[in-house]
Amino acid sequence: MTRQESQVLSYIQENMSLIEEELVQSFPSQWVIPVELKDAMLYSLMAGGKRLRPILAIAAAEAVGGHAKTALPAACAIEFIHTYSLIHDDLPAMDNDDFRRGKPTNHRVYGEAMAILAGDGLLTHAFHLLAEMAMRYDVPAERVLRMIRELSMYAGPRGMVGGQVADILGEQGITNIAELEYIHVHKTSDLIVCALRAGGHAANANEQQLDALEQFGYRIGLAFQIQDDILDLTGDESKLGKNTQSDVKAEKVTYPYFLGLEACETMVKDLTREAQKAILLAKLPHPERLLQLADYLMDRDH
Amino acid sequence: MTRQESQVLSYIQENMSLIEEELVQSFPSQWVIPVELKDAMLYSLMAGGKRLRPILAIAAAEAVGGHAKTALPAACAIEFIHTYSLIHDDLPAMDNDDFRRGKPTNHRVYGEAMAILAGDGLLTHAFHLLAEMAMRYDVPAERVLRMIRELSMYAGPRGMVGGQVADILGEQGITNIAELEYIHVHKTSDLIVCALRAGGHAANANEQQLDALEQFGYRIGLAFQIQDDILDLTGDESKLGKNTQSDVKAEKVTYPYFLGLEACETMVKDLTREAQKAILLAKLPHPERLLQLADYLMDRDH
Repeated sequence: MTRQESQVLSYIQENMSLIEEELVQSFPSQWVIPVELKDAMLYSLMAGGKRLRPILAIAAAEAVGGHAKTALPAACAIEFIHTYSLIHDDLPAMDNDDFRRGKPTNHRVYGEAMAILAGDGLLTHAFHLLAEMAMRYDVPAERVLRMIRELSMYAGPRGMVGGQVADILGEQGITNIAELEYIHVHKTSDLIVCALRAGGHAANANEQQLDALEQFGYRIGLAFQIQDDILDLTGDESKLGKNTQSDVKAEKVTYPYFLGLEACETMVKDLTREAQKAILLAKLPHPERLLQLADYLMDRDH
Repeated sequence: MTRQESQVLSYIQENMSLIEEELVQSFPSQWVIPVELKDAMLYSLMAGGKRLRPILAIAAAEAVGGHAKTALPAACAIEFIHTYSLIHDDLPAMDNDDFRRGKPTNHRVYGEAMAILAGDGLLTHAFHLLAEMAMRYDVPAERVLRMIRELSMYAGPRGMVGGQVADILGEQGITNIAELEYIHVHKTSDLIVCALRAGGHAANANEQQLDALEQFGYRIGLAFQIQDDILDLTGDESKLGKNTQSDVKAEKVTYPYFLGLEACETMVKDLTREAQKAILLAKLPHPERLLQLADYLMDRDH
């Protein structure tokens, strides 16, 4: 393992702990919430995600000179949104998945009705976490409102929900790469872009810095998705923790399907370099972690 | 029809038009949203609701001396939340209803997957509508943040979603009136309280006025629910637009089940008077419409 690799791994580990401590404390202790609902929400929140989005939010805040702590509520809000989207995606009416990350999916444990409501609860509470930021930290109300405006755009009908709809409709046949890109930009990149911008906002980033974070996020989001498609074809099942070749078996249209494996590998590298270039051009005060995280995502084998 | 009745009816009609014009324009025209998703969201948004919550938000803003227009985004945000909750409640995994207000439910028209996503899209976009308020109207950012904090509380795990969970769990047997009240306070009153407070916030209400609006909302919300139970027993099917005696047939525990019909009728009257008293005690500048709306709700036969 190179020095950079070990640095980025310990950065991820440290921030995962920070994020997970914050996630379990997300509901005010004085609130009365039905126990079954809280259990169902926490089950999926704490089901061992990679915490990619919240870590990127924190790294973005640090890149523009802010503190990890200030970005934590935004980081957690985005993880709440990501988690709700996985619970709803796994439902029988959607992808009908029984397992995620080796564990039974939410509806397999708590039933469909509770899984729908746990998703609704997480989605709603994400906005509570953001709205509380202005009180808990020294983030101006106008900034927090911008974060809420962006989260509701990137996660809503124009963003992630729209991407999910296109994905479902696309199962009846995607005929070109533009359709595939629409799905991935909105299903995956939008929330990653939102995480990076939210981290930037928390640290009082200026417009040029926000724009650089967005360019970075858009490109690593797309690279991430293409890398997922590649790993599904060539990855090691034991490292991935899931069966490979699932896309081929499900006759799913992917980037390698359209472009071939080699072109896809080049695309992942190119997108990563372009992402890093956007950050370097903006001359952020502390760009190192973002640059390292981009490399880490490109080189990952799971 | 008395003069007051005709006044309140024309007030409701006027504001319904205002609200419905605003609802259809809720998505920025430059946004790309999959057509099927937009159709599914608008289908339920425009399915002929009574618009009780948004009308109360507007009446609250006017009661404290503000303009209907300023309260419109908040009114619509709350109608978005109400609409998403109906779509998800009707799903096969929840109440499994095929019809609502005489029309096929969302999932019967667009399929389950789309109905789940249409609900998610409406829920997410509600916060966008609120967050845009500070830009579109002269509402201070701090006020808008309070509205977002309250909506996410009253509609989330501690509020409406919690009430819905308790309702589902309660189907296995509610044994006392406290459990029934928990369900109705959170399933129904919370969002009504939120609508009234949001209208107040939009019109820059002070804490004492907000508190009066909350007292009012809590009581008419509960009265509304008890009245619903009464109408299900004694109402006219043609006026209600649905079958009566459905609670008895479904062996559903209701207020009349615990207390008898007569005591329930008294409760509705008492709660309405107490609600009106809270408004009168606070000496709001223009309380008339709120007082009339409370009478209207108490006397309704559908």
